[in-house]
Amino acid sequence: MTELTEDRRMSLASLRERAAEFDAIDPLARCRELFALPDGVIYLDGNSLGACPASVGASLDDVIRRQWAERLIRSWDEGWWETPERVGARIAPLVGAEPGEVVVGDSTSVNIFKLAIAGARMKPGRTRVVVDASTFPTNGYIIESAARLLGLVVTKADPRSLGDVLGDDVAFVMMNHVDYRTGELWDMASLTTMTHDSGALAFWDVCHSVGIYPLEFDSLGVDLAAGCTYKYLNGGPGAPAFLYVRAELQSEFDQPLTGWHGHADPFAMTPEYAPAGGILRGRVGTPPLISMLALDAALDAYDGVSLTAARAKTETLTTLYIDSVDALLDNDVEIITPRNPHHRAGQVSVAHPRAKELVKELSNVGVLADFREPNIVRQGFSPLYISHADAVRAAEALALVLG
Amino acid sequence: MTELTEDRRMSLASLRERAAEFDAIDPLARCRELFALPDGVIYLDGNSLGACPASVGASLDDVIRRQWAERLIRSWDEGWWETPERVGARIAPLVGAEPGEVVVGDSTSVNIFKLAIAGARMKPGRTRVVVDASTFPTNGYIIESAARLLGLVVTKADPRSLGDVLGDDVAFVMMNHVDYRTGELWDMASLTTMTHDSGALAFWDVCHSVGIYPLEFDSLGVDLAAGCTYKYLNGGPGAPAFLYVRAELQSEFDQPLTGWHGHADPFAMTPEYAPAGGILRGRVGTPPLISMLALDAALDAYDGVSLTAARAKTETLTTLYIDSVDALLDNDVEIITPRNPHHRAGQVSVAHPRAKELVKELSNVGVLADFREPNIVRQGFSPLYISHADAVRAAEALALVLG
Repeated sequence: MTELTEDRRMSLASLRERAAEFDAIDPLARCRELFALPDGVIYLDGNSLGACPASVGASLDDVIRRQWAERLIRSWDEGWWETPERVGARIAPLVGAEPGEVVVGDSTSVNIFKLAIAGARMKPGRTRVVVDASTFPTNGYIIESAARLLGLVVTKADPRSLGDVLGDDVAFVMMNHVDYRTGELWDMASLTTMTHDSGALAFWDVCHSVGIYPLEFDSLGVDLAAGCTYKYLNGGPGAPAFLYVRAELQSEFDQPLTGWHGHADPFAMTPEYAPAGGILRGRVGTPPLISMLALDAALDAYDGVSLTAARAKTETLTTLYIDSVDALLDNDVEIITPRNPHHRAGQVSVAHPRAKELVKELSNVGVLADFREPNIVRQGFSPLYISHADAVRAAEALALVLG
Repeated sequence: MTELTEDRRMSLASLRERAAEFDAIDPLARCRELFALPDGVIYLDGNSLGACPASVGASLDDVIRRQWAERLIRSWDEGWWETPERVGARIAPLVGAEPGEVVVGDSTSVNIFKLAIAGARMKPGRTRVVVDASTFPTNGYIIESAARLLGLVVTKADPRSLGDVLGDDVAFVMMNHVDYRTGELWDMASLTTMTHDSGALAFWDVCHSVGIYPLEFDSLGVDLAAGCTYKYLNGGPGAPAFLYVRAELQSEFDQPLTGWHGHADPFAMTPEYAPAGGILRGRVGTPPLISMLALDAALDAYDGVSLTAARAKTETLTTLYIDSVDALLDNDVEIITPRNPHHRAGQVSVAHPRAKELVKELSNVGVLADFREPNIVRQGFSPLYISHADAVRAAEALALVLG
């Protein structure tokens, strides 16, 4: 860091001091040792693929060598069958739901499809569905496909002016809680209320907030939701996603992927489909058990974690990172994430014309981040394994690679 | 086995001799040691959940401890992204297809849904779809759901009289290659030809034949197919299923689960969906990598395995089992699987009023089988790890538990 001016060296010393103070009182600092992170790496990609909880290896050894190899088919009767709802029940408190409201299985995209078709069917006669214009692409694609099948029209809306597009012809509003590019966090409470006021269902994607934000689906009256488990929940690459349907709506949850695992009596093997009661009808085919049990093991890292503490730490981490960027760098990067911590979740995105190269150069100095088109360096601050000292070091690294 | 009469003891000796002769010249006998099977167990449930290949444990150790924990997000660029098509290409020769015709991902049920919607769209104006009446339930449920979305009528047909229901209004005929209850194997060649003669697409489910039968999708002109990988392919519980679309049809393959992994340029993250070329458009969301890489490792057991040899061995295994049941048991069980070996695949099903209890009692003496409603003991003979001696012993066990 020979490039730093005297002023900046002073700033850095002060930032490091602030970091040390935060880290000293961090109630989640103990979580870092639950993760098998390589030495010398600051992992700011937990919003894309969470780090590996150290417990997963041993758990999967048991899944492979005992449950599968020794117990064989008997394991289906010894707990495997109920895994989707059991793991769903572990996720429920993280989203402010009851155990019977969440089930795990399939990818986020597939779950968005189930919810889009079922949501539209809950509002017969309503001919439009609304998606936020900045949606993660897959949600938009899938909802277009569902709309095509049902003969509905899709309206793209800026969350800031959602009211402008609502009307009594809208079946549901699907919104991403966090903008995957900018990291902006939308106000779930007010947008849900506005959606309900128009008679539409509130359908949320919480891929980028589950695990770092105290979600309150039940108390806000969220109707439908999906989220992935391989980001902040650290479930492993492609870990199955989850699905939430508010208890009161479950009897109307008429989803199109009517696989035998969602049947009221799967082993009766009757020719007609009869949906299981409750959230179980969100199940489809035989779930990828090994991936799902890796997620199950990974969730142990959340035992005893207060989401209020996680949220508070995410705010201080991202604030410190932004302050460090401001202090250590010239104006050659633009922070496109809201500076008000209440309007962002766990990520800070910076725009730079050489973003793609910067991500590689950061990787070379041990800071792993994401590139997103067209010019974004996306960095996620997982409160379970990123320290405030890491946040300052990450900004230092950015200053270094920018020369 | 004190219950055996003198005659039956003679029969048993002779059956054992035949088994020893077959086993002595079995080209697949070497495969047994590739599996981590518990001592003292004859595993006749490989048609439900294949045994665990011994190589899977070490492979997953590497996936968890190196690829995920150490390489982290970088693994997506180091081979993970291409896993669905790479593993699909390993399955392609097992079904008589080219590498670019098979992709792995999602459950069989979800893949049936993709193919049902896409298949119907390939035949606009045709208002009916046909499903075999004895289908594994999930296929029937899913096709009913697809038909409901598209406004089509579903006709259930006995494969023996398929011609009676065909007509120029049929978009596709979805058939299970093997009846999951009786084990009857249908003639894919003649049924595909008959289907094509009516102008419909031939859509096959090969869950119960892939890995034990030399499938010939390309040469028979099969149009669409799906199959699971956790039965004879030993991919592990809920291992992702595969999807086949004949090369000539891929440009028309307009499937409804338009997730970002099937996009022509996934990381461009454009707001409009544009399907990838070829079979890649069968991908949806982020696949369950840990389960998929377990399957990848499991497929090593098929290296150098001739499917002709596997098919021949399955015929001798099931024949010897049936002969043993005939010789050792009174007429208190009914073999409901065709006695002509050309009309069955890898399983033999016997009917008995106490079938459910029998499955438990067999398990107590080390023979693992399946119960299927209403009165069926279903036993699968995987040619990779079941010996002819096992087949005779399994019949002995059945005689024993029937007292």
